[in-house]
Amino acid sequence: MSTDANEHLNDWLRDAHAMEKQAHTMLDSLASRLEHYPDLRSYLTQHREATHGQRDQLEACLKRRGSSVSALKDIGARLAAFGQELSGMLVSDEVVKGAMSCYVFKQMEIASYTVLVAAADAAGDQETKTVCAQILQQERQMAAWLLEHLPAITTAFLARAATPGAKAKV
Amino acid sequence: MSTDANEHLNDWLRDAHAMEKQAHTMLDSLASRLEHYPDLRSYLTQHREATHGQRDQLEACLKRRGSSVSALKDIGARLAAFGQELSGMLVSDEVVKGAMSCYVFKQMEIASYTVLVAAADAAGDQETKTVCAQILQQERQMAAWLLEHLPAITTAFLARAATPGAKAKV
Repeated sequence: MSTDANEHLNDWLRDAHAMEKQAHTMLDSLASRLEHYPDLRSYLTQHREATHGQRDQLEACLKRRGSSVSALKDIGARLAAFGQELSGMLVSDEVVKGAMSCYVFKQMEIASYTVLVAAADAAGDQETKTVCAQILQQERQMAAWLLEHLPAITTAFLARAATPGAKAKV
Repeated sequence: MSTDANEHLNDWLRDAHAMEKQAHTMLDSLASRLEHYPDLRSYLTQHREATHGQRDQLEACLKRRGSSVSALKDIGARLAAFGQELSGMLVSDEVVKGAMSCYVFKQMEIASYTVLVAAADAAGDQETKTVCAQILQQERQMAAWLLEHLPAITTAFLARAATPGAKAKV
């Protein structure tokens, strides 16, 4: 059975849409819990809203292509569940694991948009290609910020964790 | 309750050890299933063995620190289960999702070793810091290779998927 590039592109756009929804939940959940890490909190809060815009852009692509955002496809559902689990974790080193998880989730988005740019190109859909390339750039910037700040977050967490009476986890 | 940087470092080293075990299973599983993507297959096969060496290095760090590789800690177990699920997926676009998953898993390792370098530094363990910085470099190279080749893998998959009678998924 052969499948047209357009069908795969639609599937992958739907996966990306589900991912952006999950990204918003994840960033929101971590940001709202953080008390002692103001830089990370303000970064997450600022960038949480970007996920809304990305979701709208993906919806517009799907609509233009005569498709819709209905059901979650296979891997999309699993990845979203993974994000959900990570965002809800209650561990003693939550700020470190949370920042790591946001970074990994951003990288999942980077992989997805990289695939989408190639797929849109193969399907001859230049408008979708441009949208996905723009979002890819935004995701790259956010992933880079998180990785760059991960050592300082780790050091701050360890310093708080070693201080009697200080709350370190969030 | 305050916790020493050394305890966190030991926990995180154990998580990384579990991750390397899972990385080996994942690379091995995808490589053994691939039939029509020789570049990706040979890359995964070559680099699968690197995970063994990394595991041994982490074990040596733990031993030197008077700790061991016993139980999987919280997030380590979940992340490993996530990798397991991804590596066992049977989807029509397996080669694309498989390459994406390997990339995301590598990024999870990059986040982990970035935290470990900072934690080893905070704990004053220069030898562990050096080991983790070396492994971090290896993971970065592998992630970069995967992301660089993801567009070509996507295009090759879409071309095979559109060809009647051609097997595209692996």
